[in-house]
Amino acid sequence: MRVGFIGLGAMGQTMAQHLVKAGHEVRVWNRTPARARPLVAAGATLAKTVAAACDEAAVVFSMLADDAALIDAVSGGDNEPGIIDALGEGDVHVSLATIGTELSARLTQAHAESGQHFVAAPVFGRPEAATAARLTIVAAGDDAALARVQPLLEVMGQKVILLGADPPAASLVKLTGNFLIASMIEALAEAYALLRRNGIDPKQFLEIVNGNLFRSPIYEGYGTLMAERQFTPPGFKLALGLKDVRLLLASADRAAVPMPLGSLVYEHLLSAVARGKGDLDWTALALVVAEDAGIADG
Amino acid sequence: MRVGFIGLGAMGQTMAQHLVKAGHEVRVWNRTPARARPLVAAGATLAKTVAAACDEAAVVFSMLADDAALIDAVSGGDNEPGIIDALGEGDVHVSLATIGTELSARLTQAHAESGQHFVAAPVFGRPEAATAARLTIVAAGDDAALARVQPLLEVMGQKVILLGADPPAASLVKLTGNFLIASMIEALAEAYALLRRNGIDPKQFLEIVNGNLFRSPIYEGYGTLMAERQFTPPGFKLALGLKDVRLLLASADRAAVPMPLGSLVYEHLLSAVARGKGDLDWTALALVVAEDAGIADG
Amino acid sequence: MRVGFIGLGAMGQTMAQHLVKAGHEVRVWNRTPARARPLVAAGATLAKTVAAACDEAAVVFSMLADDAALIDAVSGGDNEPGIIDALGEGDVHVSLATIGTELSARLTQAHAESGQHFVAAPVFGRPEAATAARLTIVAAGDDAALARVQPLLEVMGQKVILLGADPPAASLVKLTGNFLIASMIEALAEAYALLRRNGIDPKQFLEIVNGNLFRSPIYEGYGTLMAERQFTPPGFKLALGLKDVRLLLASADRAAVPMPLGSLVYEHLLSAVARGKGDLDWTALALVVAEDAGIADG
Amino acid sequence: MRVGFIGLGAMGQTMAQHLVKAGHEVRVWNRTPARARPLVAAGATLAKTVAAACDEAAVVFSMLADDAALIDAVSGGDNEPGIIDALGEGDVHVSLATIGTELSARLTQAHAESGQHFVAAPVFGRPEAATAARLTIVAAGDDAALARVQPLLEVMGQKVILLGADPPAASLVKLTGNFLIASMIEALAEAYALLRRNGIDPKQFLEIVNGNLFRSPIYEGYGTLMAERQFTPPGFKLALGLKDVRLLLASADRAAVPMPLGSLVYEHLLSAVARGKGDLDWTALALVVAEDAGIADG
Repeated sequence: MRVGFIGLGAMGQTMAQHLVKAGHEVRVWNRTPARARPLVAAGATLAKTVAAACDEAAVVFSMLADDAALIDAVSGGDNEPGIIDALGEGDVHVSLATIGTELSARLTQAHAESGQHFVAAPVFGRPEAATAARLTIVAAGDDAALARVQPLLEVMGQKVILLGADPPAASLVKLTGNFLIASMIEALAEAYALLRRNGIDPKQFLEIVNGNLFRSPIYEGYGTLMAERQFTPPGFKLALGLKDVRLLLASADRAAVPMPLGSLVYEHLLSAVARGKGDLDWTALALVVAEDAGIADG
Repeated sequence: MRVGFIGLGAMGQTMAQHLVKAGHEVRVWNRTPARARPLVAAGATLAKTVAAACDEAAVVFSMLADDAALIDAVSGGDNEPGIIDALGEGDVHVSLATIGTELSARLTQAHAESGQHFVAAPVFGRPEAATAARLTIVAAGDDAALARVQPLLEVMGQKVILLGADPPAASLVKLTGNFLIASMIEALAEAYALLRRNGIDPKQFLEIVNGNLFRSPIYEGYGTLMAERQFTPPGFKLALGLKDVRLLLASADRAAVPMPLGSLVYEHLLSAVARGKGDLDWTALALVVAEDAGIADG
Repeated sequence: MRVGFIGLGAMGQTMAQHLVKAGHEVRVWNRTPARARPLVAAGATLAKTVAAACDEAAVVFSMLADDAALIDAVSGGDNEPGIIDALGEGDVHVSLATIGTELSARLTQAHAESGQHFVAAPVFGRPEAATAARLTIVAAGDDAALARVQPLLEVMGQKVILLGADPPAASLVKLTGNFLIASMIEALAEAYALLRRNGIDPKQFLEIVNGNLFRSPIYEGYGTLMAERQFTPPGFKLALGLKDVRLLLASADRAAVPMPLGSLVYEHLLSAVARGKGDLDWTALALVVAEDAGIADG
Repeated sequence: MRVGFIGLGAMGQTMAQHLVKAGHEVRVWNRTPARARPLVAAGATLAKTVAAACDEAAVVFSMLADDAALIDAVSGGDNEPGIIDALGEGDVHVSLATIGTELSARLTQAHAESGQHFVAAPVFGRPEAATAARLTIVAAGDDAALARVQPLLEVMGQKVILLGADPPAASLVKLTGNFLIASMIEALAEAYALLRRNGIDPKQFLEIVNGNLFRSPIYEGYGTLMAERQFTPPGFKLALGLKDVRLLLASADRAAVPMPLGSLVYEHLLSAVARGKGDLDWTALALVVAEDAGIADG
């Protein structure tokens, strides 16, 4: 099938590769075209514009981390047409990024007004999981659109979960999942600060608690990075984690749901950005917690 | 071996049973003697006093949830001798309960002053795990004492982890582990309130997030109880959970470690107690979070 | 001078009256025209459209509580021209409402692009103070505009403080001032809950602490309302207080300043709205705090 | 009248001076006797022991900041008799310090068991106010005792408020009053960080908000110190402020009243101590808030 792919960051690049390898005709676009090289080498075509990537594609994927970039790509600007202009009636735009529920609703409506379909299909997993096609993808959109994109999503992820007709629901599930991870990071950060101040090795603690109680690969992974204070290179940038928690709180605000733990995680991530740590991995939230406990080297 | 066992609550009763079944000569004591019946039926001896339970026992276990009860049992009172009076030189007192680090240190010193040994050996696991002898036990105390009690602990738990010579360290590891669970409950409570307000089923969310990401039996167990709002009978009483978080914060205070998530969980548990929910399972913290979001039926 | 006045809520109505009484030719507009009657009786002219209120007025005031209403009034819509269309070059739009710094910046730019001036002139004080012309007004805008509007502002307020050329600065000062009041309400709410649970009368406490220590009319006023649990009629609606704290946190987010007390107040106000208390006075935040302490009647 | 005075810190020294000047026969005791010199010069007698200071005194005042020191002075130790041993039946011990409600209750009971009276009479005001005899004193104890000590308290304070027969009530009112001040410091600290990040001078803000709205000498005093970042010499040491908030939270815990703002202030003060700022004035809480916002020089 001919598909377009907009946005070739760490995640997008790997996911587009899976589509190419599965034999699809993939036209890729990225703000910095150089990042497309490995894909072109593998058989993708480099599009010079967003519209060119959409050309004659019945399905276009986007993986753009930042709302403004996504809005630009969808709506176009100046004399540059966007996805919505370039897609034909009945075509599908699948956003793989973590976006807010409000934007998810707006895109749903905007595509519907052009007779097109919008699918929110955020992914769970870090770049290593994307490379191994072990992502979990949660997709929501109307039935016809889901039916068409499901086989493509299955090329990129190990598991594709269809969540129904309402794209913002998929966006919310993803934001809420990230919130659980962020909460776990906060809890581990506070636990480690307390243990270190008492001369107990966080690694030994992790072994006891995760080895016997939680038995979770995600505690294992994050907990080990944090015990080793290895915050770079970032698997997921702290500034992006902050963005996601901010979007979560915006959804909570609209639903009148106080989320004090959401606020706490938000404040610590914001403080990390204020202290110049926005480009570290988001586990570097632990540095803020440690500094607040007077632990100088984090 | 002849051992004493003080405190026959849900956990203590089951753990003492394992000792009896393993062929040890167990003398049990409980404030309400009726609770000793199943143990006596299995071959234990009912002691009329704490001192009688300790008589000629080289090792005495205690499983007393509440600090005051433990202090009474150790120090005795009025004309009633306590564990410390009844044990001989070189004997060992093993506390299986979750106690504060300050009390742990005090008991260590008090037994040492009488030429005895104190081992803090708190257990991870709920009553079902105790029945199945699948508990994890984290023990700290001096080498000689640990060597003597390890075989007994292995009768009660699936895994015994020796943490070194300092009993308060084991107490702190246990309190910190409970804090991680409490934090997970708080995070799930906030997540569920948000999802419910948006018409998304918490169970479906749990399946997605735990099934693919966390893959943790503890998220599965707690998350399901919370999704089904099944807060009674309590696996672990909310009022006891509050007590443990209070002890954690006391340790954090002494170490000058701010734990804002610890405080948040504490406040929600305290609010639950203030609202008359102290006898529910500690996952009922979710009722406070839901009520704060205007969800009337929790 | 001929002036326009857009928005006749409790505050706007009284402020416009002062302009009429001072002899100015005031054209008023309100979504619900009936609210203009007392003003028309006093000599104001009722304008049928926003544009008509602006007609030939060199200065137009707006007092619109809600951002969307203000944006509509400024930009117009459908075939309805807005303030920006109706004002001529060199004319001034003065917003008296509490607005966000982002909107303040946008309006500054929008008016500048039309050769007009924008002045942010938020007011401190409740309706009684407005009636008595005892408001404090903090105004920012370019020098020429300030010079022109200052005499008009002095008709409405007891004190007019010029804050410089940057309208968002005035908006931020107002939001921050409201934050101080909200923080005081939160502190009193927690204090009262603790005292009541201990059988101490909050009124007696207030007398001691404010009478001798704070000696502040604002503690006296708010503290008395709260001690008497008199939350209606609202002097300032809780839902509007929530809006202001939300705007404050948006400014804090852009500046990367964590404001945990801001978040706490926000969550309590949001919870109050979720529990159906949005139309009470914002001191009703105390009901949330009391309910969290299990005090059933607030 | 012959009175004893135990504890000659900054506050105690000045208060004892007022008693001497009023013509009372004052016997003073302090751990470091050198601090008694100015009092002896003024006519007081230096007692070598706590008991000697109590000798033949019908009323003994204590002003000891720290619970342990107060308990030692009351109960004595080793071969050293304490206040309770030295006072006769019907005599009165007045504690002027800020103490916890639990200790207040314990001392009430202990003195009652010896046929003596305990009065909790904490004072509001900083050392300057003590010097000028402008303190406010809130006293609780049984009627007979209050009647006897009231004239003495009136020598030291501008205003003496009798709160009834229950000493812990006076202690709680004092702790709660301190909590209001701490909350105000937290609110100002967050406000200032936000303003500074936006290029607005905190002093100008203070002038606007306190000059027109709060009109409170306490906002003026604390707000100016904070705007000028003048945290030394301390009027009230941060570590003592932390102690008081800790005592407040202990009372709130016993009453099952969640105080999230209390916890927030506590965490910031604890973080300040962890960062080595415990000896600064307690307004230095602002340094923690500023550092969290990435403002390096506080």
